Amino acid sequence: MQLSAQQLKAFDDQGYVFMPNCFADEEVALMRSEGEDILKADRQEVWREKTGAPRTAFAAHTFNELFRLLVSHPRLVGPLKQYFGEDVYVHQFKLNAKAAFEGEVWQWHQDYGTWARDDGMPLPRAMNIAVFLDEVMAINGPLLLVPGSHKKGVLEAGHDKLTTSYPLWTLDKETVTQLVADAEAKHGAGIVAPTGKPGSVLMFHGNLVHASPPNITPYPRKIVYLTLCAVSNHITKFTRAEWIAHRDFTPIVPVEDDALMEYARAHRVAAE
Amino acid sequence: MQLSAQQLKAFDDQGYVFMPNCFADEEVALMRSEGEDILKADRQEVWREKTGAPRTAFAAHTFNELFRLLVSHPRLVGPLKQYFGEDVYVHQFKLNAKAAFEGEVWQWHQDYGTWARDDGMPLPRAMNIAVFLDEVMAINGPLLLVPGSHKKGVLEAGHDKLTTSYPLWTLDKETVTQLVADAEAKHGAGIVAPTGKPGSVLMFHGNLVHASPPNITPYPRKIVYLTLCAVSNHITKFTRAEWIAHRDFTPIVPVEDDALMEYARAHRVAAE
Repeated sequence: MQLSAQQLKAFDDQGYVFMPNCFADEEVALMRSEGEDILKADRQEVWREKTGAPRTAFAAHTFNELFRLLVSHPRLVGPLKQYFGEDVYVHQFKLNAKAAFEGEVWQWHQDYGTWARDDGMPLPRAMNIAVFLDEVMAINGPLLLVPGSHKKGVLEAGHDKLTTSYPLWTLDKETVTQLVADAEAKHGAGIVAPTGKPGSVLMFHGNLVHASPPNITPYPRKIVYLTLCAVSNHITKFTRAEWIAHRDFTPIVPVEDDALMEYARAHRVAAE
Repeated sequence: MQLSAQQLKAFDDQGYVFMPNCFADEEVALMRSEGEDILKADRQEVWREKTGAPRTAFAAHTFNELFRLLVSHPRLVGPLKQYFGEDVYVHQFKLNAKAAFEGEVWQWHQDYGTWARDDGMPLPRAMNIAVFLDEVMAINGPLLLVPGSHKKGVLEAGHDKLTTSYPLWTLDKETVTQLVADAEAKHGAGIVAPTGKPGSVLMFHGNLVHASPPNITPYPRKIVYLTLCAVSNHITKFTRAEWIAHRDFTPIVPVEDDALMEYARAHRVAAE
């Protein structure tokens, strides 16, 4: 799959592209079911909220065949190879749970800020791909994006190790207020919250400022965040565990477009 | 002002009525400005979040002329006298700040649960009227309502004194999950979040289950919550301070419909 000229222009202007219905129900149902099993597992890759609810599961593509197929899927890998003009590798894989009632905040941040500071990634030539496993609604802790904020470079940030269980380089209130005012003036919306059915995909720039609020509803909001990095831009500092910031820079070889569907049909789960 | 037959039917079915643009910009601008001054004040009626940001200001109608006019306004008092078929008095006045970045959660609860348990209010013959002073958006901590949940009576609740600075009788996760599933089946939406411009008004039943998530955006979300109670249904237990649960059961005498506008014009503030 390739991005259209219009999608590339939107990405350049706003810093993100949203693609509803990128994966079919049948493909997503199995990812949701296997994702839930992984989040229940007692293993080092699964981090928890202060309440014990799952927060994020790292590196599932290294131990789960379905998620291995997902990270090699041409609908995700194709647009990134097109955009970067070279091969890509998996820098990070996170399954963020944002559990019903207990999913906590992710404060305002840029992902590339962490990749640069903690991992020594030379340039913001890596991108986040969010794959919705549940329906993302306005009410269940959607991702909030500040349009155009990816053009501001790496902003000053503080290392927040207290707010939640996950250490993050976060932006201060004054910076976020200014960025949101700029976005309102330039793009007509200070903050956007893409919402959609399971199987929708959101790609966003490594420098795009984003956050997500707590989820106080009974509706879980699982999203896979896959970070693919241009191979020539691989990380140079190994301060985080290998299963958080990967050190295998082998180019992804895309699978067939029907690989997930074939696998899902062979491992069918009951429809919800 | 009176509710239409359609509004009364919607209220009976769903437990709430939303009225966009109930007050004009000019009327709301002064309430917003005076509300901000009140929230900054160092007085016992102003409660704060753990961060120090304002959470709620009680009883402003007892010390501020503009808010005295608001609680006596025919657009608010008229529908309640119509609905209850008798005079009403002010049971509670809260200005909830839901401050930018710092406004914390209000957990799932029914207001009448508190009025009954803490204040000895005989019947749910009191109603909440929310007057939006800022724009309420999906992203800045809107009120979340479970349609139809007002028909379930007073549900079992636990007294939460830990989560936030405000003690509240809150519902457990299983109860909320069931209510939301029921609402989804019956009303096509498990949770609704009325959003709108400043000056919009939301009236909701004392037994309607509701909550509001934290506000992590730069957009403040101030709402006045006015609770008017049928005079014959006045409270009988005085466990809370008089400025939290009022003991003056004098029937409200409505002011003229243009009273707020006249006052706003005489005390004009610069438009935002």
